[in-house]
Amino acid sequence: MSTSRTELKDLGEFKLIENITQNFKLHHTTSIHGIGDDAAVIDTGNFYTLVTTDMLVEGVSFDLTYCPLKHVGYKAVVSNIADIIAMNGVAEQITVSIAISSRFTLEAVQELYQGIYRACEHYQIDLVGGDTTSSTSGLILSITAIGRVSKEKLCLRKGAKPYDLVCVTGDLGAAYLGLQILNREKELFEADPHMQPKLQPYQYLVERQLKPEARTDMIQMFEQINLVPSSMIDISDGLASELLHISKASGVGITVYENKLPIDQKTHETAEALHLSSTLCALHGGEDYELLFTIPQSELPKIEKCSNIHMIGYVTDPSLGVKLITNSEESIDITAQGW
Amino acid sequence: MSTSRTELKDLGEFKLIENITQNFKLHHTTSIHGIGDDAAVIDTGNFYTLVTTDMLVEGVSFDLTYCPLKHVGYKAVVSNIADIIAMNGVAEQITVSIAISSRFTLEAVQELYQGIYRACEHYQIDLVGGDTTSSTSGLILSITAIGRVSKEKLCLRKGAKPYDLVCVTGDLGAAYLGLQILNREKELFEADPHMQPKLQPYQYLVERQLKPEARTDMIQMFEQINLVPSSMIDISDGLASELLHISKASGVGITVYENKLPIDQKTHETAEALHLSSTLCALHGGEDYELLFTIPQSELPKIEKCSNIHMIGYVTDPSLGVKLITNSEESIDITAQGW
Repeated sequence: MSTSRTELKDLGEFKLIENITQNFKLHHTTSIHGIGDDAAVIDTGNFYTLVTTDMLVEGVSFDLTYCPLKHVGYKAVVSNIADIIAMNGVAEQITVSIAISSRFTLEAVQELYQGIYRACEHYQIDLVGGDTTSSTSGLILSITAIGRVSKEKLCLRKGAKPYDLVCVTGDLGAAYLGLQILNREKELFEADPHMQPKLQPYQYLVERQLKPEARTDMIQMFEQINLVPSSMIDISDGLASELLHISKASGVGITVYENKLPIDQKTHETAEALHLSSTLCALHGGEDYELLFTIPQSELPKIEKCSNIHMIGYVTDPSLGVKLITNSEESIDITAQGW
Repeated sequence: MSTSRTELKDLGEFKLIENITQNFKLHHTTSIHGIGDDAAVIDTGNFYTLVTTDMLVEGVSFDLTYCPLKHVGYKAVVSNIADIIAMNGVAEQITVSIAISSRFTLEAVQELYQGIYRACEHYQIDLVGGDTTSSTSGLILSITAIGRVSKEKLCLRKGAKPYDLVCVTGDLGAAYLGLQILNREKELFEADPHMQPKLQPYQYLVERQLKPEARTDMIQMFEQINLVPSSMIDISDGLASELLHISKASGVGITVYENKLPIDQKTHETAEALHLSSTLCALHGGEDYELLFTIPQSELPKIEKCSNIHMIGYVTDPSLGVKLITNSEESIDITAQGW
C-alpha cells in the first residue's frame, strides 16, 4: 500500500468514483455507456439492455428505528427502477443481495422481502438472483436492476441543447421534509418513550419518504405522445445535483426559476413551520425519484396538457452556468452544496 | 413484525433463500431462469444474457490481515466470472459497489480497484457501473457480472442424465489448504510479531487461495471441440455441495470415486503434514473455481485427450443418491456437511 493517506471524507463520492475508474478501458463494442449515467447501456442486438445497481447500508442509507423493513425493501427496488426509467427504459428483472448480522431473525428477513415482493408485483419485476451472507454489523442491501429500451428511445444525461426546455415531473422536497418529521418524532420518542408519534398531519410527506414511487407512468406517457426527451435523469440526490449532472454531461448551461419549482402546499407549510426554505428542500432534499428532463421547444405542444409535467426553465449556453432566478429576480449560482 | 423468532443460523443459506423466494412469480417471458442456478438467464433475442451477483463482507468473506486488498478485488471479479462460465457463457461487463468505513483511505480503495482492474484486463471485462457508500464497519463489496451465451450452448445445473460421465477440471482442495496455511502463519505472527511468514514452500496453495483464476480456457476448448456439457456448475463451495446441486436440479444420483479425484501432489503432502484428509479438502474445501460438469458417454472421445479434464464418476438413477466410493471400496453418502 502507498504511504500517502488521503481521507475519503475530503474527497466526496463523485471525485472518488472519478479517481478509481479513470484507468478503466472498455473492451467490448457492446458496452455502449459505462459509468456516468443512471444505468449502464449494453447493446443486445435489437434493443439496449440497461443495468443499474445500488448499495444500502443500515445506519447510513436507512434507519430501522422509524423505517420498517418492509419499506426498506420496497424503496430499494423503487430507487433502482427509477434509474432504469431515467434512461427512458422499462425495468424487468432485479437481483437482491443481503448481508445480515445475527441480530436479524428469519421473520425480519421475511418482512424485508415482503417489501421487495410488493414492489416487484407493483412494477412487474422478476427477482432472478442474488446472494445472502453474514455481516459483522447490521443489514446491507445491494440491488441490481436490469431493463430494456428501444435504441431510438434511449435518454442519457448528455443530449440537452441550448434553448431546450427543462421539465420536472410531480413535486419536489416532500421526501426530505418527511425525513425531518420522522427524525423529530424519533427524538421526541427517545426523550419520552410514552409519547405517541404525530404523523397523521404529515402523511403525504412521510409517505414520500418511506414509500416513494418510480414514474413508470411518465415513461408510458412519453411513449403515447411520442416524445423522446433530449436528456433525462432521476431526482434522487436533489434537483440541484441533477441539474449539475445534466449541465456537465451535455456541456450546457441551465437557468431555472424559483417560482416555477413544483412544490406541494403541504411541503410549503411544513417547511415554514420547521423554519426551512421549501426552495432549498426542493433543490437539495433528494429522494423524490421524480424525473428531470429536457425537450426541444418544438416538442412543447406534446406536453402542454400534461398536468404532472412542469417547465421550470431552459437550457443555455455553457458560459452562463447553472442558475436559479429567485422570486426577487436575483440570479444565483446553483452548486451541489447549497446557494 | 411477526412475534415468532427463528434464528438465521438454525436455517442455513440455502433454506433461507428457499424460504424468502418461494412466493416470487416470474412476470416476463424473457426471464428464462431465475434463482437456483449459477446465473440468471434472460432472453435478449439472438442470445441469452446471463446475470450473477456476489456480496463479500470483510471479516466474513475475507480477512485483510493476510489478504491484500488487491487480491480481494481480483478474486471478487474471478468468482463472478466463474459463475458466468458455469453457464457455458462469456462474461463481458461487471458493476462494482462498495461500502467503506472511514478507516479506509483513498489509497486503500485504489489498491482494491487495482485488483479489480487487473482482473478486468485479464478477462477482457468492462466495468460499466456501480455504487459507493459509507459503511459503519469495514468493507463490503458487491459485484454483478453480465455475460452472454448462444441459446443452444446454455448449460444449467439440470440436464444431467443417468449414465452421463461426471468430470472436473484442474485440481481440487488446494485453495482450502492455502487458507489453512495463511491462518497458521497469522496465528504465529500474532504470537510473535518478529516472525517471518514461511509461505514459499506453499506458493501453489496460497496462490490458489489468494489469486484464483476462472476457467475461461475450458469454455473456449468446449467451443473448439464442439462439446456442450449436459449440466455444469462451478466449484465454489466444495465438490460435495456442487454434486448435490447437480443431483437435486437434474433429479439424478451420482457416484464418484475417491481415487479419481484430481488432487495435486502439494495438496496431498500439505494435508498430510497438517493431519487433514486431502479427500475431505477436495470435497468440502471450496474456492477452487474449477468446473464440475456432465457429458453423455457418446461425447467421451472429445475429451479423452484433454489433460485438464478428469472423469471422476458417473450419473446414476436418483434412487442411488450421491455416493463416494472410497479407496477401500466402501460406498459412502456424500452430504453437504461432511461424510
